[in-house]
Amino acid sequence: MSDSRSGRRGVAELVSAARDGDPRALARLITLVENDADELPEVAAAFAPFTGTAQVIGLTGAPGVGKSTTTNELVRALRGRGHRVGVLAVDPSSPYTGGAILGDRVRMQDHATDTGVFIRSMSSRGHLGGLAAATPQAVRVMEGAGCDVVLVETVGVGQAEVEVASLADTTLVLLAPGMGDAIQAVKAGILEVADVFVVNKADRDGADATYRDIQGMIGLAPRAPGSWRPPVVRAVAAKGEGIDEVVAVIEKHRDWLVAHDELRRRREARAAAEVEAIALATLRARMGSLREGTALPSLAAAVASGELDPYAAARELLAGLRSSSA
Amino acid sequence: MSDSRSGRRGVAELVSAARDGDPRALARLITLVENDADELPEVAAAFAPFTGTAQVIGLTGAPGVGKSTTTNELVRALRGRGHRVGVLAVDPSSPYTGGAILGDRVRMQDHATDTGVFIRSMSSRGHLGGLAAATPQAVRVMEGAGCDVVLVETVGVGQAEVEVASLADTTLVLLAPGMGDAIQAVKAGILEVADVFVVNKADRDGADATYRDIQGMIGLAPRAPGSWRPPVVRAVAAKGEGIDEVVAVIEKHRDWLVAHDELRRRREARAAAEVEAIALATLRARMGSLREGTALPSLAAAVASGELDPYAAARELLAGLRSSSA
Repeated sequence: MSDSRSGRRGVAELVSAARDGDPRALARLITLVENDADELPEVAAAFAPFTGTAQVIGLTGAPGVGKSTTTNELVRALRGRGHRVGVLAVDPSSPYTGGAILGDRVRMQDHATDTGVFIRSMSSRGHLGGLAAATPQAVRVMEGAGCDVVLVETVGVGQAEVEVASLADTTLVLLAPGMGDAIQAVKAGILEVADVFVVNKADRDGADATYRDIQGMIGLAPRAPGSWRPPVVRAVAAKGEGIDEVVAVIEKHRDWLVAHDELRRRREARAAAEVEAIALATLRARMGSLREGTALPSLAAAVASGELDPYAAARELLAGLRSSSA
Repeated sequence: MSDSRSGRRGVAELVSAARDGDPRALARLITLVENDADELPEVAAAFAPFTGTAQVIGLTGAPGVGKSTTTNELVRALRGRGHRVGVLAVDPSSPYTGGAILGDRVRMQDHATDTGVFIRSMSSRGHLGGLAAATPQAVRVMEGAGCDVVLVETVGVGQAEVEVASLADTTLVLLAPGMGDAIQAVKAGILEVADVFVVNKADRDGADATYRDIQGMIGLAPRAPGSWRPPVVRAVAAKGEGIDEVVAVIEKHRDWLVAHDELRRRREARAAAEVEAIALATLRARMGSLREGTALPSLAAAVASGELDPYAAARELLAGLRSSSA
């Protein structure tokens, strides 16, 4: 769908301005991604040459573990090492509510005057390809605008968050004492995608138990020989404690990825998921246009009344799709 | 994918036995649904004539609100009214863990000797079409086997649960005091799909506050004129209290659905979602077979290295799909 605001500046102009570090152009481009604007293929083509220039770090955890504070401190540490940093706060919000709980603008204040940091919230509601397509596209825009580290932060610990996390080069999972996180992590499949665990608020009661729990679960998880064993780092992000250790572990993981040709493998997997999501979204959009015609509703009515079974109906739908997509 | 166990009895024989009330045949058929067996189109065709014969009641709520107990008591009440009842406990588990937290076999004991009740857990992990396709198919099997009420229970309150709930004729959302449910419900989009709210454990502290919270949120939610306003029922399922009121409200909602031609509309929407999910799963499976060949990996490698943008890659993928699907 087209974003009416995008007409104010042409894509080429926006891309050029974003490349020159214009934060408003960058923001506009991510809005195009968010809304699955018609201009996206053009944006994607313009930014393709810069693909792979940034390290992508995923950061997830349940509400209340201190994600914003930790992100903020990581940005500070990475800036101190001379990186240009992009932060993408992705909200895999329900398709129903539209009530994205984003913002937390306070933390942005810390870096408001720093042109080496770009912070942006993004929902994937408007994007037909969902998170799998929207996130890599937004990352690519940030890469193209010169960010050499992109932090992708997601709210909550669930399947959607796991999906986003698995799109990163390195995935950090934040835990905090007394939240039953370890169990949650296992249930949500986080153990399979986490590269680094951070026990935040490590100065609180129960931090040792959380540390032991997660170490125990890591020990129990099946892992191929020679594979990466996720380290567990203790931190008190609110006091800046443990952040250097987190950065060191991220760098260690990056070296490991490169040494094991795993970086290339992960990025190709991410690209495959992205291409497949765009392709499926395209097909779904074609079905949607059939739906507005008569094919799907009349097929659905036949299925609902028991005249037709759903497989036969799906075959008819696909036959119609094939003839319409020529 | 084919379930090796399905070979032991032919589909026609299983369908016939399930029609005669054989619970093992019914269980076997739902296993076929769960695993997306090759025989499914045949099963669907056999059961199509019985579509729409059962009232489908969705039941969802966060862990700990008393879903199992409430389901159990509803089954008892519905049996008392002479209904044959099917219970489908759907676990929209993560594709990663496979750790379905199902079972709770204890409650089944209550109805173990009652041939008018069929209780079955189902995961949708093995089903390419996901919950949207698997649940209506399993419901259709239960309808075909003579259940005139099917309770679809889902674990948790999240997007997947909302999806399942929205497949029902009448959707019950369970809350309990002191769990912050009302907020959760709003976040997960439950308000939009709930037809009836049940404040369970209504004899506990905080029940009045929960009742007021949810009433307040219902009052605030946008609602078209003449639409159904979800009633809130207090219950103590563990003592059987309030269950008759819940059943009465379900019957009232059913009458409302029929009077407003909303039952037909909902069932056609459910069928449309099912047909679309099967069609998309078919397309996805075709892409999967491309993936095992060379198309997607080489396209993904080109995207990961920045030679190709993902939209151009998706176009190439779809072009290959079209020529391979002839």
